Amino acid sequence: MFRINENYLKLQGNYLFSSIAKKVSAYSAANPEKEILRLGIGDVTQPLAPAVIDALHKSVDEMASADTFRGYSPDQGYAFLREAIAAQDYHSRGVQISPDEIFVSDGAKSDSGNIGDIFAQQNKVAVCDPVYPVYLDTNVMAGRTGSADPASGRYEGVIYLPCTEENAFVPQLPDEVPDLIYLCCPNNPTGTTMPKAELQRWVDYALEHGCVILYDAAYEAYIREDGIAHTIYECRGAERCAIELRSFSKNAGFTGTRLGFTVVPKALMSGDVSVHDLWARRQSTKFNGAPYIVQRAGEAVYSEAGRRQTKEQVDYYMRNASCILEGLRDAGYTVYGGVNAPYIWLKTPGSMTSWEFFDLLLEKAAVVGTPGSGFGPAGEHFFRLTAFGTYENTQAAVDRIRHLQIL
Amino acid sequence: MFRINENYLKLQGNYLFSSIAKKVSAYSAANPEKEILRLGIGDVTQPLAPAVIDALHKSVDEMASADTFRGYSPDQGYAFLREAIAAQDYHSRGVQISPDEIFVSDGAKSDSGNIGDIFAQQNKVAVCDPVYPVYLDTNVMAGRTGSADPASGRYEGVIYLPCTEENAFVPQLPDEVPDLIYLCCPNNPTGTTMPKAELQRWVDYALEHGCVILYDAAYEAYIREDGIAHTIYECRGAERCAIELRSFSKNAGFTGTRLGFTVVPKALMSGDVSVHDLWARRQSTKFNGAPYIVQRAGEAVYSEAGRRQTKEQVDYYMRNASCILEGLRDAGYTVYGGVNAPYIWLKTPGSMTSWEFFDLLLEKAAVVGTPGSGFGPAGEHFFRLTAFGTYENTQAAVDRIRHLQIL
Repeated sequence: MFRINENYLKLQGNYLFSSIAKKVSAYSAANPEKEILRLGIGDVTQPLAPAVIDALHKSVDEMASADTFRGYSPDQGYAFLREAIAAQDYHSRGVQISPDEIFVSDGAKSDSGNIGDIFAQQNKVAVCDPVYPVYLDTNVMAGRTGSADPASGRYEGVIYLPCTEENAFVPQLPDEVPDLIYLCCPNNPTGTTMPKAELQRWVDYALEHGCVILYDAAYEAYIREDGIAHTIYECRGAERCAIELRSFSKNAGFTGTRLGFTVVPKALMSGDVSVHDLWARRQSTKFNGAPYIVQRAGEAVYSEAGRRQTKEQVDYYMRNASCILEGLRDAGYTVYGGVNAPYIWLKTPGSMTSWEFFDLLLEKAAVVGTPGSGFGPAGEHFFRLTAFGTYENTQAAVDRIRHLQIL
Repeated sequence: MFRINENYLKLQGNYLFSSIAKKVSAYSAANPEKEILRLGIGDVTQPLAPAVIDALHKSVDEMASADTFRGYSPDQGYAFLREAIAAQDYHSRGVQISPDEIFVSDGAKSDSGNIGDIFAQQNKVAVCDPVYPVYLDTNVMAGRTGSADPASGRYEGVIYLPCTEENAFVPQLPDEVPDLIYLCCPNNPTGTTMPKAELQRWVDYALEHGCVILYDAAYEAYIREDGIAHTIYECRGAERCAIELRSFSKNAGFTGTRLGFTVVPKALMSGDVSVHDLWARRQSTKFNGAPYIVQRAGEAVYSEAGRRQTKEQVDYYMRNASCILEGLRDAGYTVYGGVNAPYIWLKTPGSMTSWEFFDLLLEKAAVVGTPGSGFGPAGEHFFRLTAFGTYENTQAAVDRIRHLQIL
């Protein structure tokens, strides 16, 4: 008699964004005349850059002719893409990551979920609270946690790193030593960052205690200020303790095109076992590469035109971020993030819970955001707004929130 | 101190096709003047069908404009694709699979590797021998096996279903009852099939004993003869015990374009837990959908033109299969498969091992095949040739093998 993976039964409710989608669908069905403004899920709205579109058309044409047709991709991804990444994301910042330490994938969500495969079930996991749900849920699924406490929503056996107003949303080194540490900077959901010196403390800690840092840098393109690391490998020794996850979703609008990569340095070892080789084995066995045409699209992001055009997109979204940040601050809200990240972390007014504020915003303003408590108990009384809408919709949403006059 | 997943250390050697690629690279570097003919890895050579190319260009244009741009895909894939699949792969055969039982993915390799996530580690696995390595390796990685016996290469705790000349390569019901049973029909690597009545016996067995059948139907489009099921759901009761894995790689040449799907019927339950819901949770948490443009390409495979054009591709490869089958049979080889599948399963001459024959073919004829022993110990003294080359290269390879006059 077959048995299911009972760890799945420990998961609380549905995947956050699926739950929101259902609420919004129900509202929309009941109020077909209302125009809903979506500042909820972190999905982009700007079309793909012209350089990317050109690369897609060109590579589609290659697939139409036997002479230029491409079948299975090399296991780690095409060299043309890995070389562009190594040169522009790493070498240009003085960081020595080689193309064969880069693994091209269908996105950072898959990688951040799948990376756990190569680590033992017994590892103790540390995550920020609030946190991108994928890090936590995938570890629940893998059996690295106990059950959730119904009151707090926290899973037994997980080390939570609270990110609160008191610590400026910067996770502090824990008392109990974890084995795997998930960090995300610029942060989803809080939209805040940590100074490079703070990140170096985490790297030093990981080296001292034999931890692996799983570093999600999906929002790197949004960094505007100095003193923030664009890659964890800017920190001394990080190549011996850190895996970096990167995405094309937010810097180039690939949420529906699907491309990402993960860096596993060869210097990252567990005794005499190379973690790089384990990941190579995992990927060559359970994954068959990103589409050729999408890898060509990724290459185009690194072309001169592609860099200029995608930077314009990021600037467009950051104008939205400023609009939200300033508009809501002027209206008396307490807001964080939004300076080096496309997310604004809003404190809910009065004693409202995150979901109460979600319902209020949906019902009274037809504006969709993401309840902070969906990212963890320390996210309660906060609310995430994203800058990925159109400028017009973003302005309109801010106006609607202001006119609610909750405060 | 972090610990790796030590189950990975039980894996034998590298992923089969990576090993072959390395041998071929070395030969090629040493013999730059030799034209290598590849009948090894199951990669296609014909370009994408015109209907697919048109759909790609059209959807790329949609991604270029804000009005028609698409971000994140629905969790299970776009309805336009799932509806086309349900109608044409299932309803047209009198099988009631609904679109919401279909999960679109980036390919059957990912799905056949990832599907294990939702089952307990304690499940006992049955695989054919020889077998597509992904089924076995992913279960080794998940800790569902003991170590490999160095002599036989077989993993402790796995139920092997030998597929040999004696049983016409049809797996027989085992004495010990497994929990998860992997079946692949038409079969990779043997290129053989089992009659629908035999498959029904497996379904009945699974229902009687509470097993799940993981049914890989990636080569369904190659079925030419009557009496072979095109989907396991043609068998009575299969919706209560079977998950079906499907691919666009071989019927439409998507090896480098990446698209597949998995059917998890809602009737498949473990007590009161829906296996469908577990897979939905797994995919919504650890996967973010196939690219929109690729899902549109998949939809085009089901258009009238797409069906006609992809059928022509399949016919083209089946002409290659006949060429290999007849050419080698005439030359005195014992050959199987190749009638309802793009693979020919050749018995190595004399007492040659599979790798000896691989080396001989590479060295003397510059022809690349796949050693049968790479698919399991019962594959020893066999050799897989694929029909996915060009017709000219396939003919040339057959001629070279004939002229070796080994027999």
